[in-house]
Amino acid sequence: MDNLFLEIPDDLPVELFTLLVDSDAVRIERIVSRGHATPPGDWYDQDRHEWVLLLRGAARLAFADGREVTLAAGDWLEIPARAKHRVSWTDPDRDTVWLAVHYA
Amino acid sequence: MDNLFLEIPDDLPVELFTLLVDSDAVRIERIVSRGHATPPGDWYDQDRHEWVLLLRGAARLAFADGREVTLAAGDWLEIPARAKHRVSWTDPDRDTVWLAVHYA
Repeated sequence: MDNLFLEIPDDLPVELFTLLVDSDAVRIERIVSRGHATPPGDWYDQDRHEWVLLLRGAARLAFADGREVTLAAGDWLEIPARAKHRVSWTDPDRDTVWLAVHYA
Repeated sequence: MDNLFLEIPDDLPVELFTLLVDSDAVRIERIVSRGHATPPGDWYDQDRHEWVLLLRGAARLAFADGREVTLAAGDWLEIPARAKHRVSWTDPDRDTVWLAVHYA
Protein backbone atom coordinates (compact mmCIF):
# COMPACT_ATOMS: atom_id res chain seq x y z
CA MET A 1 0.00 0.00 0.00
CA ASP A 2 1.62 3.22 -1.11
CA ASN A 3 -1.45 5.45 -1.19
CA LEU A 4 -3.19 6.12 2.10
CA PHE A 5 -6.63 6.30 0.48
CA LEU A 6 -6.46 2.92 -1.25
CA GLU A 7 -6.92 -0.63 -0.02
CA ILE A 8 -9.79 0.20 2.29
CA PRO A 9 -12.09 -2.82 2.53
CA ASP A 10 -15.84 -2.57 1.86
CA ASP A 11 -16.51 -4.29 5.18
CA LEU A 12 -14.90 -2.69 8.19
CA PRO A 13 -16.21 -4.40 11.33
CA VAL A 14 -13.36 -2.94 13.40
CA GLU A 15 -10.91 -0.10 12.85
CA LEU A 16 -8.17 -0.97 10.38
CA PHE A 17 -4.54 -0.43 11.45
CA THR A 18 -1.85 -0.66 8.75
CA LEU A 19 1.80 -0.45 9.75
CA LEU A 20 3.85 1.67 7.34
CA VAL A 21 7.17 2.18 9.14
CA ASP A 22 8.47 0.31 12.17
CA SER A 23 11.97 1.28 13.32
CA ASP A 24 13.54 1.69 16.74
CA ALA A 25 12.87 5.40 16.54
CA VAL A 26 9.42 5.57 15.06
CA ARG A 27 6.26 3.70 14.19
CA ILE A 28 4.05 5.14 11.47
CA GLU A 29 0.62 3.71 10.86
CA ARG A 30 -2.53 4.42 8.94
CA ILE A 31 -5.84 4.01 10.74
CA VAL A 32 -9.22 3.82 9.02
CA SER A 33 -12.38 4.33 11.09
CA ARG A 34 -16.02 4.18 9.96
CA GLY A 35 -18.13 5.23 12.89
CA HIS A 36 -15.88 3.35 15.29
CA ALA A 37 -14.96 4.66 18.71
CA THR A 38 -12.89 3.37 21.61
CA PRO A 39 -15.17 1.33 23.88
CA PRO A 40 -16.50 3.48 26.75
CA GLY A 41 -14.19 3.33 29.75
CA ASP A 42 -11.20 2.19 27.66
CA TRP A 43 -8.23 4.55 27.28
CA TYR A 44 -5.07 4.54 25.23
CA ASP A 45 -2.21 4.99 27.71
CA GLN A 46 1.00 4.91 25.68
CA ASP A 47 4.70 4.76 26.51
CA ARG A 48 5.58 6.93 23.52
CA HIS A 49 4.46 10.28 22.18
CA GLU A 50 2.02 10.23 19.30
CA TRP A 51 1.65 12.80 16.52
CA VAL A 52 -1.69 12.29 14.86
CA LEU A 53 -3.08 13.78 11.64
CA LEU A 54 -6.59 13.51 10.29
CA LEU A 55 -6.37 13.04 6.52
CA ARG A 56 -10.01 12.55 5.61
CA GLY A 57 -13.33 12.36 7.45
CA ALA A 58 -14.11 13.69 10.92
CA ALA A 59 -13.43 12.53 14.48
CA ARG A 60 -13.34 13.51 18.11
CA LEU A 61 -10.65 12.63 20.63
CA ALA A 62 -11.39 12.74 24.37
CA PHE A 63 -8.74 13.06 27.06
CA ALA A 64 -8.87 11.81 30.64
CA ASP A 65 -8.60 15.41 31.86
CA GLY A 66 -12.00 16.13 30.29
CA ARG A 67 -10.75 17.91 27.20
CA GLU A 68 -12.35 16.91 23.89
CA VAL A 69 -10.97 17.85 20.46
CA THR A 70 -12.83 17.73 17.13
CA LEU A 71 -10.70 17.01 14.09
CA ALA A 72 -11.31 17.77 10.40
CA ALA A 73 -9.12 17.05 7.38
CA GLY A 74 -5.65 18.52 7.86
CA ASP A 75 -5.94 18.89 11.63
CA TRP A 76 -3.10 17.45 13.66
CA LEU A 77 -2.15 17.26 17.32
CA GLU A 78 0.50 15.87 19.59
CA ILE A 79 -0.50 13.43 22.30
CA PRO A 80 2.26 13.22 24.91
CA ALA A 81 3.23 9.82 26.33
CA ARG A 82 0.95 8.81 29.21
CA ALA A 83 -1.78 11.28 28.23
CA LYS A 84 -4.78 8.98 28.43
CA HIS A 85 -7.09 9.43 25.48
CA ARG A 86 -9.79 7.72 23.49
CA VAL A 87 -11.54 8.13 20.17
CA SER A 88 -14.96 9.30 21.30
CA TRP A 89 -16.56 9.58 17.85
CA THR A 90 -15.85 9.12 14.16
CA ASP A 91 -18.15 10.02 11.26
CA PRO A 92 -20.49 7.06 10.62
CA ASP A 93 -21.26 8.12 7.04
CA ARG A 94 -17.79 8.18 5.50
CA ASP A 95 -14.32 6.84 6.09
CA THR A 96 -12.05 8.65 8.48
CA VAL A 97 -8.36 8.18 7.60
CA TRP A 98 -5.71 8.97 10.20
CA LEU A 99 -1.94 9.01 10.17
CA ALA A 100 -0.24 8.27 13.50
CA VAL A 101 3.48 8.71 14.21
CA HIS A 102 4.64 7.17 17.49
CA TYR A 103 8.08 8.22 18.75
CA ALA A 104 10.15 8.32 21.91
CA MET B 1 -0.45 25.97 13.05
CA ASP B 2 -2.57 22.92 13.77
CA ASN B 3 -4.06 22.39 10.33
CA LEU B 4 -1.70 21.50 7.51
CA PHE B 5 -3.75 23.34 4.90
CA LEU B 6 -3.82 26.69 6.70
CA GLU B 7 -1.29 29.49 7.08
CA ILE B 8 -0.04 29.24 3.53
CA PRO B 9 1.11 32.70 2.39
CA ASP B 10 -0.18 34.29 -0.82
CA ASP B 11 3.38 34.91 -1.90
CA LEU B 12 5.64 31.91 -1.95
CA PRO B 13 8.96 32.88 -3.55
CA VAL B 14 10.63 29.76 -2.12
CA GLU B 15 9.32 26.50 -0.70
CA LEU B 16 7.93 26.88 2.81
CA PHE B 17 9.23 24.53 5.52
CA THR B 18 7.35 24.46 8.84
CA LEU B 19 8.73 22.39 11.71
CA LEU B 20 5.99 20.52 13.59
CA VAL B 21 7.90 18.08 15.80
CA ASP B 22 11.61 18.10 16.62
CA SER B 23 12.77 15.41 19.06
CA ASP B 24 15.90 13.28 19.26
CA ALA B 25 14.02 10.51 17.50
CA VAL B 26 12.08 12.30 14.83
CA ARG B 27 11.59 15.53 12.92
CA ILE B 28 8.21 16.15 11.33
CA GLU B 29 7.75 19.03 8.94
CA ARG B 30 5.23 20.42 6.51
CA ILE B 31 6.49 21.57 3.14
CA VAL B 32 4.50 23.73 0.72
CA SER B 33 5.62 23.98 -2.91
CA ARG B 34 4.12 26.04 -5.74
CA GLY B 35 5.94 25.10 -8.89
CA HIS B 36 9.24 24.92 -7.03
CA ALA B 37 11.87 22.30 -7.71
CA THR B 38 15.33 21.55 -6.37
CA PRO B 39 17.88 23.48 -8.44
CA PRO B 40 19.30 21.30 -11.24
CA GLY B 41 22.40 19.46 -10.06
CA ASP B 42 21.50 19.83 -6.37
CA TRP B 43 20.62 16.70 -4.38
CA TYR B 44 19.28 16.02 -0.94
CA ASP B 45 21.76 13.63 0.69
CA GLN B 46 20.49 12.98 4.22
CA ASP B 47 21.86 11.25 7.30
CA ARG B 48 18.44 10.04 8.31
CA HIS B 49 15.63 8.13 6.64
CA GLU B 50 12.69 10.15 5.39
CA TRP B 51 9.09 9.07 5.10
CA VAL B 52 7.27 11.46 2.81
CA LEU B 53 3.55 11.85 2.09
CA LEU B 54 1.92 14.03 -0.52
CA LEU B 55 -1.20 15.55 1.01
CA ARG B 56 -2.37 17.83 -1.78
CA GLY B 57 -1.18 18.81 -5.25
CA ALA B 58 1.21 16.87 -7.47
CA ALA B 59 4.97 16.40 -7.61
CA ARG B 60 7.82 14.35 -8.99
CA LEU B 61 10.87 13.09 -7.10
CA ALA B 62 14.02 12.11 -8.96
CA PHE B 63 16.71 9.82 -7.57
CA ALA B 64 20.39 9.76 -8.40
CA ASP B 65 20.00 6.21 -9.72
CA GLY B 66 17.75 7.56 -12.50
CA ARG B 67 14.44 6.54 -11.00
CA GLU B 68 11.66 9.15 -11.05
CA VAL B 69 8.43 8.91 -9.04
CA THR B 70 5.23 10.90 -9.63
CA LEU B 71 3.16 11.59 -6.52
CA ALA B 72 -0.54 12.41 -6.16
CA ALA B 73 -2.57 13.08 -3.02
CA GLY B 74 -2.25 10.22 -0.55
CA ASP B 75 0.91 8.78 -2.13
CA TRP B 76 3.79 8.11 0.24
CA LEU B 77 7.27 6.67 -0.02
CA GLU B 78 10.30 5.94 2.08
CA ILE B 79 13.61 7.55 1.14
CA PRO B 80 16.46 5.70 2.84
CA ALA B 81 19.33 7.69 4.37
CA ARG B 82 21.97 8.58 1.76
CA ALA B 83 19.59 7.97 -1.16
CA LYS B 84 20.29 11.11 -3.13
CA HIS B 85 17.11 12.70 -4.41
CA ARG B 86 15.65 15.96 -5.61
CA VAL B 87 12.23 17.44 -6.27
CA SER B 88 12.21 17.53 -10.08
CA TRP B 89 8.75 19.11 -10.48
CA THR B 90 5.76 20.41 -8.54
CA ASP B 91 2.46 21.60 -9.97
CA PRO B 92 2.77 25.30 -10.88
CA ASP B 93 -1.00 25.90 -10.79
CA ARG B 94 -1.84 24.87 -7.22
CA ASP B 95 -0.18 24.35 -3.88
CA THR B 96 1.52 21.05 -3.19
CA VAL B 97 1.52 20.16 0.51
CA TRP B 98 3.91 17.50 1.79
CA LEU B 99 4.46 15.87 5.14
CA ALA B 100 8.02 14.69 5.85
CA VAL B 101 9.04 12.49 8.78
CA HIS B 102 12.82 12.22 9.30
CA TYR B 103 14.03 9.44 11.59
CA ALA B 104 17.12 7.45 12.43
